Amino acid sequence: MTGTIAFQQPKAEILARRDAIIAELRALLPSDCIIHERRELVPFETDGFLAYTRVPLAVCLPETTRQVADILSYAYKNSIPVVPRGAGTSLSGGAIGQEDAIIIGLSRMNRILDIDLPDRTAIVQAGVTNIAISEAVKPEGFFYAPDPSSQLACTIGGNIGMNSGGAHCLKYGVTTNNLLGVKMVLVDGTVVELGGKALDAPGYDLLGLACGSEGQLGIITEATVRLLAVPEGARPVLFGFPSSEKAGACVTDIIAAGIIPVAIEFMDKPAIEICEAFAKAGYPLDAGALLIVEVEGSEAEMEAMLAAIVEIAKRHDVGTVRECQSATEAALIWKGRKSAFGATGRIADYICMDGTVPLSQLSYVLEKTSEITDRYGLRVANVFHAGDGNMHPLILYNINDPEDAARAEAAGAEILKLCVDAGGCLTGEHGVGIEKRDLMRHQYSEIDLKQQMAVRAAFDPDWILNPSKVFPLEGREDNA
Amino acid sequence: MTGTIAFQQPKAEILARRDAIIAELRALLPSDCIIHERRELVPFETDGFLAYTRVPLAVCLPETTRQVADILSYAYKNSIPVVPRGAGTSLSGGAIGQEDAIIIGLSRMNRILDIDLPDRTAIVQAGVTNIAISEAVKPEGFFYAPDPSSQLACTIGGNIGMNSGGAHCLKYGVTTNNLLGVKMVLVDGTVVELGGKALDAPGYDLLGLACGSEGQLGIITEATVRLLAVPEGARPVLFGFPSSEKAGACVTDIIAAGIIPVAIEFMDKPAIEICEAFAKAGYPLDAGALLIVEVEGSEAEMEAMLAAIVEIAKRHDVGTVRECQSATEAALIWKGRKSAFGATGRIADYICMDGTVPLSQLSYVLEKTSEITDRYGLRVANVFHAGDGNMHPLILYNINDPEDAARAEAAGAEILKLCVDAGGCLTGEHGVGIEKRDLMRHQYSEIDLKQQMAVRAAFDPDWILNPSKVFPLEGREDNA
Repeated sequence: MTGTIAFQQPKAEILARRDAIIAELRALLPSDCIIHERRELVPFETDGFLAYTRVPLAVCLPETTRQVADILSYAYKNSIPVVPRGAGTSLSGGAIGQEDAIIIGLSRMNRILDIDLPDRTAIVQAGVTNIAISEAVKPEGFFYAPDPSSQLACTIGGNIGMNSGGAHCLKYGVTTNNLLGVKMVLVDGTVVELGGKALDAPGYDLLGLACGSEGQLGIITEATVRLLAVPEGARPVLFGFPSSEKAGACVTDIIAAGIIPVAIEFMDKPAIEICEAFAKAGYPLDAGALLIVEVEGSEAEMEAMLAAIVEIAKRHDVGTVRECQSATEAALIWKGRKSAFGATGRIADYICMDGTVPLSQLSYVLEKTSEITDRYGLRVANVFHAGDGNMHPLILYNINDPEDAARAEAAGAEILKLCVDAGGCLTGEHGVGIEKRDLMRHQYSEIDLKQQMAVRAAFDPDWILNPSKVFPLEGREDNA
Repeated sequence: MTGTIAFQQPKAEILARRDAIIAELRALLPSDCIIHERRELVPFETDGFLAYTRVPLAVCLPETTRQVADILSYAYKNSIPVVPRGAGTSLSGGAIGQEDAIIIGLSRMNRILDIDLPDRTAIVQAGVTNIAISEAVKPEGFFYAPDPSSQLACTIGGNIGMNSGGAHCLKYGVTTNNLLGVKMVLVDGTVVELGGKALDAPGYDLLGLACGSEGQLGIITEATVRLLAVPEGARPVLFGFPSSEKAGACVTDIIAAGIIPVAIEFMDKPAIEICEAFAKAGYPLDAGALLIVEVEGSEAEMEAMLAAIVEIAKRHDVGTVRECQSATEAALIWKGRKSAFGATGRIADYICMDGTVPLSQLSYVLEKTSEITDRYGLRVANVFHAGDGNMHPLILYNINDPEDAARAEAAGAEILKLCVDAGGCLTGEHGVGIEKRDLMRHQYSEIDLKQQMAVRAAFDPDWILNPSKVFPLEGREDNA
């Protein structure tokens, strides 16, 4: 293992009882729902968070909410940490379980339970993939809006845990804006239902609180999500700019003018080169930076919005402006963008930061990001959701060189601090997980963290649920 | 007083120390910021919640966050209940303070602190009126979206407390969807900042939790809100239907088709008559029910959307379809709708329920509502935000007749239970307050309520903040 982040010490008394715990789990679940052989546990050792890996005590793959409740009830009584896991694509370490932890994988709870078009809702189990929801309602002209780049793999349960976004969230909002209800198992095995098919609800917004809680308040087994109508038409347009600063300033001005396209995606020169080499999407290789702007609606509406955007882009010295001429071309443009992380992974190891900044700060933060990586002697590629200020600098390094890895982590931490100092925040959608846990002090005061932990304690006073994540280890009551 | 809802017993030890408490408050605040004479306290005795009134111990009108913190810190140490108050327009009793409570009125904290057009945000103090935000940015072509009918009077702090909606929230969402951050004073006087100018934030969504918390988690003194661009054009259209059932079914079908106008407002025959008599808006008096549908965008876009809506309306035997021809006419149409509550108040006393239902249940719930009020021998007028399923039956009665009042309350409770049983909830925007406190058991299980109170306790373990609201009195730890 390379990397400088400390893990919590596994509890010796649990490690000592490992075999007994596995036997006790067998009494709760069919035997094919429990994984405990070391070689079978290896696929669960990471979630794309650098080179950090941990092999958990066991993985349970329950098929019903009742089984999830039984496992939690057992773990609660025996003080065994529990880590929920969707597809393991968070990148932040949120789904890693340590040697003393039971991972609850939701992958077998992958049924769509109800599609209700008059109310424009779907009820799905937590292990359903993001894309499966849109595919199920596509024939009727509907879709589920949040679209993480990992949408082919990632699950709705994981999306809720991290409050995931995606390219099209500029117009439609992130997971929390498209979630109407959940069934959630509390730490002691109690099952609650938060929200429902009607908008809003009396009392506290526990649904909103659960969304983005990184599996620390309960384990979600079902979700009721909002469906939207597929627009009449949609068209991505490529804008090539001479520099990242100009492209960034153009984004700021588009949004400040009150124009909300469906998506504004940003790629700097290194990202263009990497993605074009992989996807052959026809990105302009002579540009210093690229925006993919998608507009949608009727023909007239798309044209009017595009005209306004082109006008603004001209003020920032846009070079190429290319409207795609066919559905195939549109699909290719998006393929290039959505495979950016995979394409980067082919040429180098990388860590991806996902700090978010106010739109007026885009150019400034991009410039400072280059300064930081230059100073560390590292390469960086920027490819991100510019319209909502969600940066994604990919810092390239060599995972087998401990010094290089330490430099990459240090540069990443500086970039996230830069985002916070510019009025933004540490993470837009990948979650705090382990990765940004110790940076939370840069964003929040001790008072803020104490208050967040008090809310956490209202759900899980004994720190059973995904315990070593989100909050700095130092100064935590469970770590005294 | 008429009405059947029980209030909590004021604490005798606080009543006995009344004069001392007022003297102690004087040490914290300038004397013109404290109201304690009985006749000056009377304007604060109600918030439009039936005929229920209570005269509080004192009203403080702080001018700074520091002063709010000083009052809370003092009240916390002395176990004195504190009730925050905006403009007192909730209708649910949420802002009533009992004889042992200090009301903190935010009306003097009414400055707009910052308008940031590039980031499309405004920072305002909690006592700023809802309409004042839109008015401040109107010259630049922006607005603040949530528009409660009381927007001339109600404050942003109150809007956040109740997570208020409004006619135009069908497209733009309610308060929680347009709120980016708050400054909030915790019960012990600690000041926290939740959220900020960037979208999302790491850690738990405490901002979402605070929104709609009815002043029980802290007192909000500043808010950062999202600004939107004023659309190119907007046009309300009147649709007259033969019956409420047909109008309700039309709403269901518009939404099920995936069409999202800016607003779909509903009026039944009694509401049409009341509003037309008051506003002379030109509503069709021969219709059994009326929809006001507002579309917006470019001319082409409005026409395309309207054509689709007219097509659906025809399937439900629409009679009148009237596009307004001028801005004056449009303003008049909205004046009629937005003055519905005031106009009703001119002809009778009323209570207004604000249950929310899934859209597929609109016609069913309207029909059952009539059956309930008929059974109680009461008149009802329905005027509400149909597009998001937020009902507003106004039950007419005579406030000076205790039996009539008890009947109205009983009918109201039955209607809210009907909404819950149809898959909806007790309140869309007015809040639980005192009014629906004892109905919370119909919506939530004991487990749900216990979990909500555990979260509340993470902020206010001693039930100092707005204590007699939201949760049923029976079975509460502070009431043991």
